[in-house]
Amino acid sequence: MRTLYHQWLCPFARKVRLALREKKLDFELEEEPVWEAGDDFLALNPAGEVPVLVEPDGTALADSVAICEYLEEAFRDPPLLPGDALARAEARRLIAWFDHKMFREVTRPLTDEKVEKRLRMGGTPDSAAIRGALASIHSHLAYLGWLTERRRWLAGEELSLADLAAAGQVSVIDYLGDVPWDEHPAAKDWYVRLKSRPSFRPILADFVPGMAPARHYADLDF
Amino acid sequence: MRTLYHQWLCPFARKVRLALREKKLDFELEEEPVWEAGDDFLALNPAGEVPVLVEPDGTALADSVAICEYLEEAFRDPPLLPGDALARAEARRLIAWFDHKMFREVTRPLTDEKVEKRLRMGGTPDSAAIRGALASIHSHLAYLGWLTERRRWLAGEELSLADLAAAGQVSVIDYLGDVPWDEHPAAKDWYVRLKSRPSFRPILADFVPGMAPARHYADLDF
Repeated sequence: MRTLYHQWLCPFARKVRLALREKKLDFELEEEPVWEAGDDFLALNPAGEVPVLVEPDGTALADSVAICEYLEEAFRDPPLLPGDALARAEARRLIAWFDHKMFREVTRPLTDEKVEKRLRMGGTPDSAAIRGALASIHSHLAYLGWLTERRRWLAGEELSLADLAAAGQVSVIDYLGDVPWDEHPAAKDWYVRLKSRPSFRPILADFVPGMAPARHYADLDF
Repeated sequence: MRTLYHQWLCPFARKVRLALREKKLDFELEEEPVWEAGDDFLALNPAGEVPVLVEPDGTALADSVAICEYLEEAFRDPPLLPGDALARAEARRLIAWFDHKMFREVTRPLTDEKVEKRLRMGGTPDSAAIRGALASIHSHLAYLGWLTERRRWLAGEELSLADLAAAGQVSVIDYLGDVPWDEHPAAKDWYVRLKSRPSFRPILADFVPGMAPARHYADLDF
C-alpha cells in the first residue's frame, strides 16, 4: 500500500492528497508529529518535514513539488499539468505563488499563531501577525478571482496542480474560518467548484483534535 | 535577445544564470530593483520578484523552478535532470532543500542582516540572527559533503539542477565570506569542481557596489 505521511493542517500535504485522489491512486494517511520526528522518519526525509510519500515498493519521496511532479510523470492519466511547455511554466509559476507567497504571507502566520501556539507551543497569539495575514489574504483571493474570470481553472481550461496548490492553502485557512468569502465572489465560485469534486471530500471530513473546523468548513453551499 | 531580470545576490537568479549557461543559451542581464518595482515589471511578474526570464519573443516566465523546468523541457541538451522519474524526484527534493530550507535557515538571514540593512534598509544587523545562520550552515555543508561522498554530483553521477540550486545559495554566502570551508572538505571539493566550470565564470566576476566580495570569492584555489 502507498502511504502518505502528513499533518492535518499542512497545506502541502493537502495538495498531495488531492493530486493522489485526482489520479485515483489508493493510499493510506499516516500522521507524523514532525516536531518530534525520530530516526525512522528522518531516514525517509532528512529535512524532517511532511509530506512524504512512500510507494508500495518502499521508495520514499519527499517535498510536495517533487512528489507531484513524480505523480505526473509516473501516472499520466488524468494529467494535472498542461501539455505545452509555456503553459506548464505558467502552472508552475502559480504553484510557487501559492506554495510560497501565499503560505509565507497568510497560511503560515495564521497556523503558527492560531494552531501551533494553542496545541503545542503555548504562548499568546501575536495579534499583529494575525492582522497582517488577514490583510494579506485579500490580495491572494483577488488574484484567484482575477485568474478564474479569465480562465476556467487557475492555469487554463483544465484543472491543474496550480488549483490543488491554491486549494491546499485556502482549505487550511478556511478550516480556521479566516477566509472573507463574501468579499471575493469569484474566488468563492472557484472554491465551490473544487469542493464539489470527489477528490475533495476526505479533506472536508478532516478534524483536528482540540481544534474544530469553522462551522461552514464542510458545507458545499456556504 | 533573451533577458534575465535579476539581483546580484539573489540565489534563485544565480541558479537560472547557471542553467542558461550550462545549456549554452545567450542572454543579457537586467538588474531589477524589486523593492521599487513598477508596473512594467509587475506586468512581467505580479509577484514582484526576480528572477524573471523574458524569451526572445517577449514571453515572460517567473519563478526559478518554473523557469528551470521550462528550460529543461524546451532545450533538452545537455539535460539538467536525470532521465528516470524517481531520480528526477530525488533531484527535485534536493532543489527544494537548497531553495527553501538552506535559504530560510542560512542565506536569507545573512543577506537580510548583512546586505539589505547595509545597502537599503538601514538599521543594526541582528547579531543573534547572524549567529543562528552561521550555526545552521554546518548542517547544510555536512549534508552536501555526505551526498558528494556517495555520488559524483548531488543528485547522481551527472551535474543537475540540484547542484545549481545549491551553488546559488552557497555562492551568495561565499560572496559574504561566511562559508567555513576548512571544516567541510568534501563540500569544498564539490564547490571547487563547480567553480571551474565555464558556466560559473560570470558569477565569480559579480561585484555589488558598496559590498565587495570576500577576498577568496573568485579564486579557483581557495
